[in-house]
Amino acid sequence: MLKACFDPEMLAEITLQPVRRHGVDAAILFSDIVVPLAAAGVDIDIVPGTGPVLAKPVRSAADVAALPVLDPAQVAAVAEGVGLLVERLGETPLIGFAGAPFTLASYLIEGGPSRNYEHTKALMRSDPGLWHRLASRLADMALTFLRAQLDAGADAIQLFDSWAGTLSERDYREFVLPHSAKVLGGIVEYGVPRIHFGVGTGELLAVMREAGADVVGVDWRIPLDEAVRRLTAAGGTAPAVQGNLDPALLGASWPVIEAEVRRVAAEGRAAAGHIFNLGHGVPPGADPEVLTRVVELVHSLEP
Amino acid sequence: MLKACFDPEMLAEITLQPVRRHGVDAAILFSDIVVPLAAAGVDIDIVPGTGPVLAKPVRSAADVAALPVLDPAQVAAVAEGVGLLVERLGETPLIGFAGAPFTLASYLIEGGPSRNYEHTKALMRSDPGLWHRLASRLADMALTFLRAQLDAGADAIQLFDSWAGTLSERDYREFVLPHSAKVLGGIVEYGVPRIHFGVGTGELLAVMREAGADVVGVDWRIPLDEAVRRLTAAGGTAPAVQGNLDPALLGASWPVIEAEVRRVAAEGRAAAGHIFNLGHGVPPGADPEVLTRVVELVHSLEP
Repeated sequence: MLKACFDPEMLAEITLQPVRRHGVDAAILFSDIVVPLAAAGVDIDIVPGTGPVLAKPVRSAADVAALPVLDPAQVAAVAEGVGLLVERLGETPLIGFAGAPFTLASYLIEGGPSRNYEHTKALMRSDPGLWHRLASRLADMALTFLRAQLDAGADAIQLFDSWAGTLSERDYREFVLPHSAKVLGGIVEYGVPRIHFGVGTGELLAVMREAGADVVGVDWRIPLDEAVRRLTAAGGTAPAVQGNLDPALLGASWPVIEAEVRRVAAEGRAAAGHIFNLGHGVPPGADPEVLTRVVELVHSLEP
Repeated sequence: MLKACFDPEMLAEITLQPVRRHGVDAAILFSDIVVPLAAAGVDIDIVPGTGPVLAKPVRSAADVAALPVLDPAQVAAVAEGVGLLVERLGETPLIGFAGAPFTLASYLIEGGPSRNYEHTKALMRSDPGLWHRLASRLADMALTFLRAQLDAGADAIQLFDSWAGTLSERDYREFVLPHSAKVLGGIVEYGVPRIHFGVGTGELLAVMREAGADVVGVDWRIPLDEAVRRLTAAGGTAPAVQGNLDPALLGASWPVIEAEVRRVAAEGRAAAGHIFNLGHGVPPGADPEVLTRVVELVHSLEP
């Protein structure tokens, strides 16, 4: 898996597959949240059925100080893959990919996937200085990774803070917002749309937008019109949203899926713009034919 | 683990431990969500490090029809444990324990713990009739289990819908509410407080109360005063709440924990009543000394 993320040809092929097979309107770079860490030399592996696993968790001041800095040359293969993609995609836009500082930090501190993020939260709260140093370094890494993709021609980016939904809004604001804002703010000069996504982030939508998102991802737990209400509760312009079909429903019968697609699309009209998408990743067991039908149905709807 | 849940002496001893060691104000029956299923004869085991695992998932109409009915005699050992506890606890109240229909159904349908509840959601949406039959049978099972505990002298009950937070409010209302309401409504005649708990249920608090809860559990993702606001948004009386210290913070430094305890207690004053508690279970690695200090601190606060 990690090897494929550093092989420009494979990267391009895998990224192109959903465009060819399902006719989606944009491609998202095939990658993994830990790619910049691995590129920089962190001893990390993606274990099938488990996820990213570190040889040694990062928990002490010495561990944080020893974290390597990502050199753009270390992700040259990814940039090369992006270059190939931009050529082969033609008019279809390519969305760049990066993990956000909190989610990256959670893998480093826990040493792998986690249910409760105990070490991450304890470190964050007990040693805020160390936390902020770590998160700031990870923000720099994400920025370097995104800039490499944008310099190679990516048309938009998506910042994945997949696990931020485990935090209260208060903690997110204090410990995460500055670092995600550094990432999203650091690519303003490219003028590309910035999508910001997490799971279970119904309480965090407004503050995730505040971090600098042009498009806010919404899983399936709240409808898009409610998401828009939350995103505009403090005033300001109407936001664009992404989501929010429950991926678990891809295994339901077609009439159920069709009704859900129509509902999501209808509720998305409350937003300034809506990128129709699943509320999280495609489940490994999903039937690809169903995905094709969903794309066709979305395309058949009134914009 | 399951064996201990059916051994009256062990049940009583394990249940008494936190009362003796930490001086908490109430005991909660040591049990597991799948105990009534196992008691009724479902082939299920609790695998260390994994959780409840079924020999064969329940997914078809025939599977549901074949589900055994729980006979009170099958949980006589639990009732006997409750009897011992009521005697030994003296003035300290005992809270009974049961899993709610949705969470029970998720184990049966998935065949074990799940991240995305794909089979559960697909069955629920694709075959609502079958879902409702299954959930209704599980509600009966939970009722039988709770009545056995209440008949044996339990002073309150807690209904655990641990994983309901994966559902939208719309789906909860249609597929879960009637069945949880059947359980909570079915013990009204006992006149005991009914606590209703789930993780990540910030969007579901009001509807979980509507199911018949006297006390609504709140994890750590929203503060208790905000929970109270949501619970009274549609009018009605002020609710009682339970929670909401983040268990992940038990590994933080004492000053951090102390500040959190004080904040949770202060925000809980917005409620008609507040059972101070963690927002979810005690992490296996938690230092018991810290738990004792938390209890002491809570007891030292102004009521």
